[in-house]
Amino acid sequence: MNRPTRTEHDLLGEREVPADAYWGIHTLRALENYPITGKSIGSYPELVRALALVKQAAARANNQLGQLDATRHQAIEEACREIADGRLHSQFVVDVIQGGAGTSTNMNANEVIANLALEKLGWPKGHYKELHPINHVNMSQSTNDVYPTALKLAVVFAIQGLLEAMETLRGAFADKATEFADVLKIGRTQLQDAVPMTLGQEFSTYAVMMSEDIARLREAIALIHEINLGATAIGTGINTDIRYAKMATEFLAELSGVRLVPAENLVEATQDTGSFVQLSGVLKRIACKLSKICNDLRLLSSGPQGGLNEINLPERAAGSSIMPGKVNPIIPEVVNQIAFEVIGNDVTITMASEGGQLQLNAFEPIIGHSLFKSIEHLEAGCRTLADNCVRGITANRELLAERVRTSAGLATALNPHIGYEHATWAAREALRSGRSVAELVLEKGLMDKEALERVLRPEVLTAPRHQ
Amino acid sequence: MNRPTRTEHDLLGEREVPADAYWGIHTLRALENYPITGKSIGSYPELVRALALVKQAAARANNQLGQLDATRHQAIEEACREIADGRLHSQFVVDVIQGGAGTSTNMNANEVIANLALEKLGWPKGHYKELHPINHVNMSQSTNDVYPTALKLAVVFAIQGLLEAMETLRGAFADKATEFADVLKIGRTQLQDAVPMTLGQEFSTYAVMMSEDIARLREAIALIHEINLGATAIGTGINTDIRYAKMATEFLAELSGVRLVPAENLVEATQDTGSFVQLSGVLKRIACKLSKICNDLRLLSSGPQGGLNEINLPERAAGSSIMPGKVNPIIPEVVNQIAFEVIGNDVTITMASEGGQLQLNAFEPIIGHSLFKSIEHLEAGCRTLADNCVRGITANRELLAERVRTSAGLATALNPHIGYEHATWAAREALRSGRSVAELVLEKGLMDKEALERVLRPEVLTAPRHQ
Amino acid sequence: MNRPTRTEHDLLGEREVPADAYWGIHTLRALENYPITGKSIGSYPELVRALALVKQAAARANNQLGQLDATRHQAIEEACREIADGRLHSQFVVDVIQGGAGTSTNMNANEVIANLALEKLGWPKGHYKELHPINHVNMSQSTNDVYPTALKLAVVFAIQGLLEAMETLRGAFADKATEFADVLKIGRTQLQDAVPMTLGQEFSTYAVMMSEDIARLREAIALIHEINLGATAIGTGINTDIRYAKMATEFLAELSGVRLVPAENLVEATQDTGSFVQLSGVLKRIACKLSKICNDLRLLSSGPQGGLNEINLPERAAGSSIMPGKVNPIIPEVVNQIAFEVIGNDVTITMASEGGQLQLNAFEPIIGHSLFKSIEHLEAGCRTLADNCVRGITANRELLAERVRTSAGLATALNPHIGYEHATWAAREALRSGRSVAELVLEKGLMDKEALERVLRPEVLTAPRHQ
Amino acid sequence: MNRPTRTEHDLLGEREVPADAYWGIHTLRALENYPITGKSIGSYPELVRALALVKQAAARANNQLGQLDATRHQAIEEACREIADGRLHSQFVVDVIQGGAGTSTNMNANEVIANLALEKLGWPKGHYKELHPINHVNMSQSTNDVYPTALKLAVVFAIQGLLEAMETLRGAFADKATEFADVLKIGRTQLQDAVPMTLGQEFSTYAVMMSEDIARLREAIALIHEINLGATAIGTGINTDIRYAKMATEFLAELSGVRLVPAENLVEATQDTGSFVQLSGVLKRIACKLSKICNDLRLLSSGPQGGLNEINLPERAAGSSIMPGKVNPIIPEVVNQIAFEVIGNDVTITMASEGGQLQLNAFEPIIGHSLFKSIEHLEAGCRTLADNCVRGITANRELLAERVRTSAGLATALNPHIGYEHATWAAREALRSGRSVAELVLEKGLMDKEALERVLRPEVLTAPRHQ
Repeated sequence: MNRPTRTEHDLLGEREVPADAYWGIHTLRALENYPITGKSIGSYPELVRALALVKQAAARANNQLGQLDATRHQAIEEACREIADGRLHSQFVVDVIQGGAGTSTNMNANEVIANLALEKLGWPKGHYKELHPINHVNMSQSTNDVYPTALKLAVVFAIQGLLEAMETLRGAFADKATEFADVLKIGRTQLQDAVPMTLGQEFSTYAVMMSEDIARLREAIALIHEINLGATAIGTGINTDIRYAKMATEFLAELSGVRLVPAENLVEATQDTGSFVQLSGVLKRIACKLSKICNDLRLLSSGPQGGLNEINLPERAAGSSIMPGKVNPIIPEVVNQIAFEVIGNDVTITMASEGGQLQLNAFEPIIGHSLFKSIEHLEAGCRTLADNCVRGITANRELLAERVRTSAGLATALNPHIGYEHATWAAREALRSGRSVAELVLEKGLMDKEALERVLRPEVLTAPRHQ
Repeated sequence: MNRPTRTEHDLLGEREVPADAYWGIHTLRALENYPITGKSIGSYPELVRALALVKQAAARANNQLGQLDATRHQAIEEACREIADGRLHSQFVVDVIQGGAGTSTNMNANEVIANLALEKLGWPKGHYKELHPINHVNMSQSTNDVYPTALKLAVVFAIQGLLEAMETLRGAFADKATEFADVLKIGRTQLQDAVPMTLGQEFSTYAVMMSEDIARLREAIALIHEINLGATAIGTGINTDIRYAKMATEFLAELSGVRLVPAENLVEATQDTGSFVQLSGVLKRIACKLSKICNDLRLLSSGPQGGLNEINLPERAAGSSIMPGKVNPIIPEVVNQIAFEVIGNDVTITMASEGGQLQLNAFEPIIGHSLFKSIEHLEAGCRTLADNCVRGITANRELLAERVRTSAGLATALNPHIGYEHATWAAREALRSGRSVAELVLEKGLMDKEALERVLRPEVLTAPRHQ
Repeated sequence: MNRPTRTEHDLLGEREVPADAYWGIHTLRALENYPITGKSIGSYPELVRALALVKQAAARANNQLGQLDATRHQAIEEACREIADGRLHSQFVVDVIQGGAGTSTNMNANEVIANLALEKLGWPKGHYKELHPINHVNMSQSTNDVYPTALKLAVVFAIQGLLEAMETLRGAFADKATEFADVLKIGRTQLQDAVPMTLGQEFSTYAVMMSEDIARLREAIALIHEINLGATAIGTGINTDIRYAKMATEFLAELSGVRLVPAENLVEATQDTGSFVQLSGVLKRIACKLSKICNDLRLLSSGPQGGLNEINLPERAAGSSIMPGKVNPIIPEVVNQIAFEVIGNDVTITMASEGGQLQLNAFEPIIGHSLFKSIEHLEAGCRTLADNCVRGITANRELLAERVRTSAGLATALNPHIGYEHATWAAREALRSGRSVAELVLEKGLMDKEALERVLRPEVLTAPRHQ
Repeated sequence: MNRPTRTEHDLLGEREVPADAYWGIHTLRALENYPITGKSIGSYPELVRALALVKQAAARANNQLGQLDATRHQAIEEACREIADGRLHSQFVVDVIQGGAGTSTNMNANEVIANLALEKLGWPKGHYKELHPINHVNMSQSTNDVYPTALKLAVVFAIQGLLEAMETLRGAFADKATEFADVLKIGRTQLQDAVPMTLGQEFSTYAVMMSEDIARLREAIALIHEINLGATAIGTGINTDIRYAKMATEFLAELSGVRLVPAENLVEATQDTGSFVQLSGVLKRIACKLSKICNDLRLLSSGPQGGLNEINLPERAAGSSIMPGKVNPIIPEVVNQIAFEVIGNDVTITMASEGGQLQLNAFEPIIGHSLFKSIEHLEAGCRTLADNCVRGITANRELLAERVRTSAGLATALNPHIGYEHATWAAREALRSGRSVAELVLEKGLMDKEALERVLRPEVLTAPRHQ
């Protein structure tokens, strides 16, 4: 109740801040202005880490350029390192959805860093005349260059997890492709029986999709490496030293281990959100593929009696409280839903990007929030899909073999041997009678047994013909 | 080459217009400014008709209020009637995607009406001092009230066709529900076999979906009946007689046969596009349902050997140039694609609505264009689905019956009679062995034959139990 | 580390569950299968409350129909009441994004209720032979009817807060409309100066938008009142008493105070998500309006020197760390971003709805999650907009008056008095010279002073003319 | 009425086809099945050209591999060349929205080519035993490889026009950047006055955005170069010679002048639509940027009295029938609307991609249709924006200079010289009193005139400071 406080002030007046809070009055304003989701920016550890690194790089450049004294510089660097290491996530309390183009996020960081640095220097929190959140921590900076830079860096960090999860999933598909390389089955187009293929080919397709998407994601991330640090207010770099932008960017690249580069035109870079839109477009592409694959897995495992029943997904939970023994494709289902969310997020990001006006896009917070959700949930989806589903998939080999044997689709392979018209007859008759195409062709004397067997070998049915 | 011309002028200067064109210089400007799609507003006959009726109602009100003389009034009314009857669609040449908040569409209408009216009065086209496109045809009007009013009226006209097509489709589903009322099958949840139902129940579901959507569409259309005629520039009704708005709206209701009412707050009504967004939301809902139904139809007809194979869609075309005898679910496929388009259009409409600023939404042309596409294509989709697919659907009755007979899902129905544990055993054993649940239960002596047969009657399996 | 456990089992085998957890093995499976967002269903208190009420109503009906004994019935009811009152939110731990069509949510509820009821009966947690999560708590139920019913009820609960917040915001706009009723200003179309209006008319527009949207939301909610309780697995009501559906629905209506009604066709109702799509469409409409209004507020308060500068938003925070004294429209900005999120959520919901197959939509969890986010964030947005922005808006009355006095747009009002040509001259000359239209008209002797003043009175400029 | 016909047949039976039609019975079926939009595939000349080139390449490979005799080969090549040159667009009559995964488009091409080739060989149309649409024109092909290949090639063709238009627009912006290089103005963040920049910097930003988007578009197009020709039905290449895929692709690359390459995994390539989704994502990004730029142009030219009034867009049409002399930003408005359409199309394409099942995506026709619309309309939008708007933009130099002179934002530049506190006082006092910051600073003796003038030079205000 009587939680002790300290007094802080800003241009709107004085306010009491909890005495033990590392954040200050600007953060307090944000808490009052944005009671939206209950989810704080501290729940995105990559963002907190990125903010700390940006501040650290800026302090180092300011010191190097003779603008920040060694004592304060050291204290700020030390504070930033601790925060980057995860010590004070709980102090990043601003809502993930916020107005002000990220100013509150920047201020939250400035305040936490200042107070932690003050403590390191032996001063109490709030003793800003010794080390000031704006004058010192935010020196040579504006929210308009710090916030997008931190957002980009955080996205680069977050994407690493997604890339690993996608690689895990790709590997799981590739393993199944090998395992099922010899399982012949009937392929389908437009949900109708088509011509033979192997179940291995089916799963290798999914592996290829993942590896292509990994490549696309890496390309999209490269665009995110271009930052506008040093742009300050609107990109003109007002109030910075001419050497600052390049120097701070290099320090940040060094500290983060990410190949960051300064944008060529900082005015453009300060207002542009194109690389976020592009990245979201690629995440949407990944979502499309994952959803398509999960649709397939659910379809291929449908039944068992009244469905395709080609593969079995591992049982992960009881499927029904009313239907005994029912097991459902729950892991693909959760991935489908993540995909739908990512596709919706892309619309949100698109609108936020389109709505940016003149020299700044004020809607970057929702862009960041939506991207983090998309990235994190896709990563979780890939992992649960690989670990809790794909690895445990088994094939109903006998059923698949039997279906190929009796498939009317085999008639396609006989086209070059018995002609399109005989093939059509065989296909239709097979469907009508339930007998196999092979049986019918032999009975009618259209091919001899040996020739027929040669044509119907799996490696012949599932590839172009050698001369 | 040397097509004869007449000279017209506007505030930007003089221009030559084709001598035989009913449209004039403002339309010419639009042709030069908006060479976007190649599709003209004349391709939406409902819009042309609505524009003509609005102009006719306005002229009648102006005459009644003593502002437009009888001669011009009669000529304008006569011209509008002819246009509403479809005589001059080819003269409505402005691109469907246009800037200017519909001004060019309004001007195109003003010019065509003026020139047609001039001819009726014995004057040559372009002789505007006798009857002027703006001073007389557009009297008491602004694009800002005329255009949204015409758009709404046109949408009401267009929706009638969609409602009829939906009713046709509903009827087709209802007929199939009756035809298949006695066809027992296994229902599915999450693509896994569940408990029995009838194919009639399945199709009655689609009929109910359609009738609910018809009801929702009628509700949404009622909102469109509220118009802002008389609002003029920004809704304040500047330069109109206080009696004009009500009078013109009543004349328009009378001429169109639509129960139009004036909006209560014309300033709000002039800038608001909420009723379009709501309507598009309902069209999107219809698209979702149709797409879901088509997904089901494609799934239920999948196979025939390696699919669900429960129903057969009528053959409408050869399915493949390479696979003999293959027939595909092409009609549901085209409807799926229309649905995807409608859902995309909804995003377009949403963005256009969100982007409106201050006293006017400048983006109503794309809203109108997107709505017309959604409505027309949904209508076409419902018709081809009803006529070229649903009516010809047949059921694979024997296969369905056999599947029910051998279904492990029947075990659910035995729960109350043999207990959950025995039921689970029977279900699992049936799946394992391929034998029927009934057979196993009888063999094990869990129920006697008579009791079992009573429980497994279709009317018992597919409804709650009577006491 | 060595947290004590109890052993539970399901069809996949035995597992250890924390001894103090009210949830059980099915929930444990879900925790392992869906580590997606870190946000649990317990974070939606309306959903937990709705689940508890559904279970309570079902238990009461089961008891009434002689299927559930009084002891267990009483214990279950008591447990449900406590949960509805909010005692055990922390036990609802399943992730908000989950596969299985809500089965895990249902199971989580069944288990928590069972264990709480067991405790009330003096048994330890997990002693399910006395009172079983499935056999007793889930009696006559399936996830497929319980989950959508609870989702709908929860949405109805959640919407109340949004409706109140919208009403608050409507009131704030209406108050400003009254306050600014006499503030004359120039209206704008297509961002260009148009004709005069009052600032009161501008704000009354926003109030009307809110009240219309409130009406639309109430209509959409009425559709949500239709539930499928008693449908069980696929809507056929298998294994329920014929009287159960109606009875349970009535009990639920009574317990919740919501006018719930049973759907006419339970098979349709079990697979259909149309009412969710419709509701989301209306939320999207609200988002569009709010975003449009916030765009306007930001525009009207732009500047101060190089912008429209018509109104002042209350200062809520320092706007910039680099630009002294800058204050930004941060509250409208956060609402814009909420709107973008809601519009994205609508796409997610649409895709989830479209993806439902056959007798069940497996993607209702993401539909529910997206709806809750849209509803909660819109509510928060309306509140912060009303309280932290609209109420504190002030008008720059002198500037507005001066702009009207010198506006070329006044020429429109003179059309009927001096003719279109003279009006055009006056408008162009006013813009060119910077002098007022009135001055020019007087100088040229086109009207006398008295007549001119009569025409330029605010009440004349901003309404149709009386005869 | 009695238009002469010829008889053709397919697996569904015999039908009469207009005697003078180059298309045949399969096309007739499509006309009956898909009466959706009234827009035919012939309205996409790039698609027709691409189809003809694919068929030509296939014929050449078939001849080379000894499967197609010289006579038929030559006739087919000649027919394809004529069609590619645009002779028979009117014969490509199938609706742009169609089921069947493009089969009807492929069949339409097969039939037109066959009949034109027959005529060249001296046979009447329909004399298919001499040269058959399927056996000869479609030899070694399936819709499933031909259609996506043609779609990709057509998209590559269409994109060239867009790239040129973007380059034109980029140039127009760059020219304005040069023209306005010395025009100092106040930049804005969050619509609030910020710090100085030049109007040239503002326009150079738009030029940079265009050049970045051109680069992104080129990258996306490179992905489209990967085709699946030779994959036939499901990607296994069944019924083709092992050398065919590579050979046909090389011929197609040669004939089209496009660097096409065969996909590594043809099974994957046959079902995957990822490159279309990626391309659409980039088109959406371009749409976002264009819309943002047009929003800016409309904002910067708003007023003139009650707006920003910084620039003047060229007058392209009378803006209003009721407000004399009003001119509106109609060209940016039409581009905004195109952008909204493109963003909606992206959702359509995403859903179509997500909905693809197993070995084929049946929804490629709507993907193609949506892409063509996006590409064509963006091209038209860029052209009209460059030619009818950007080139004619003028700056209100005096007003801009005056605003900078009196701007409170100049105080930011004085921070390093007079300190943050004095700067804040100067900024606030300038806003309050209407006096300039410079005046106040001089009066107060905070800086001397010379030093102040040095700091307030444009090149100092709009760039980082040199040491």
